[in-house]
Amino acid sequence: MNRAEARVFIATSLDGFIARSDGNLDWLMQAQATAPPGEDFGYAKFMVGIDALVMGRKTFETVLGFDRWPYPGRAVHVMSRSSAVRIPAALVPLVRETSQSPADLLQQLAQTGARLAYLEGGELIQAFLSADLVDRMTITTVPVLLGSGRRLFGPLPADRSWTVDGVRHWDNGFVQADYSRAR
Amino acid sequence: MNRAEARVFIATSLDGFIARSDGNLDWLMQAQATAPPGEDFGYAKFMVGIDALVMGRKTFETVLGFDRWPYPGRAVHVMSRSSAVRIPAALVPLVRETSQSPADLLQQLAQTGARLAYLEGGELIQAFLSADLVDRMTITTVPVLLGSGRRLFGPLPADRSWTVDGVRHWDNGFVQADYSRAR
Repeated sequence: MNRAEARVFIATSLDGFIARSDGNLDWLMQAQATAPPGEDFGYAKFMVGIDALVMGRKTFETVLGFDRWPYPGRAVHVMSRSSAVRIPAALVPLVRETSQSPADLLQQLAQTGARLAYLEGGELIQAFLSADLVDRMTITTVPVLLGSGRRLFGPLPADRSWTVDGVRHWDNGFVQADYSRAR
Repeated sequence: MNRAEARVFIATSLDGFIARSDGNLDWLMQAQATAPPGEDFGYAKFMVGIDALVMGRKTFETVLGFDRWPYPGRAVHVMSRSSAVRIPAALVPLVRETSQSPADLLQQLAQTGARLAYLEGGELIQAFLSADLVDRMTITTVPVLLGSGRRLFGPLPADRSWTVDGVRHWDNGFVQADYSRAR
């Protein structure tokens, strides 16, 4: 594969929402608070192999609003079709804005030595799925129905089948499955 | 509980669809065909305790179109707000049409000795979830993204939290979880 592998690691409600309509994650925070202290649901292990973070402008701006930058030392690619992204001075060495297509970005990452890209944000993941450029997904299902919100998955030009590589669950009701694309 | 317990046992795509937009279940049949012969994914065991089947008119008419009636000897309640349901003569002793509310139906079932009701069909399940009258759900996730279709879940007046009672998966990628309502 002459492109970086694209991976998803994300939590959704049982009805497929990754946030409420206004972006609120209270339901996720609340569910995580019932887990044993220090339990990260495999996140640190997942991040070990990641060479590049890829996110949309909205996700980048949301993450900028966190108390501290959660990806110290990691290269971040912010995909933006039109509007210029404001990158704080401290992050300029790490954050790169790009209007490349998903395919071009993954190819360029490979050329610069990055093998594993972590895709963040619902709209970005949907764009990569549409282009059939998502290779692996770890999806954690939180046992709550929200009824409305921002969806993880969207319309597709064709079916996308997956192989299940593993399934695990926790006492707080989180169910996590690893999917790899069956091509 | 002075009403019958309401249960769901259903398969969905990874993006939450129970059928394509035209009702087609080809993706589900195809996925089931990869399972070992005789594997029923717990369906027979689930059905052992069921006293009453509850479905909407559309689901009833779909099931009528099957090669043979799949619920021999079982009482079926067809919920229909307005339009009269055409019940074939052979099924008249078993099938009852009702315009009762979900709450009234479950209460009446209990009064006639039925303890476990099996809810079938997306719209019906959504109506019972809206009324917070679903007690247990067994959801089998098929590892395919369809992109569009008829959704299992719909809008809700409030969040609905669940406890996970068990999780299992099969070599063909089906992931099944048992949920009970955390009230």
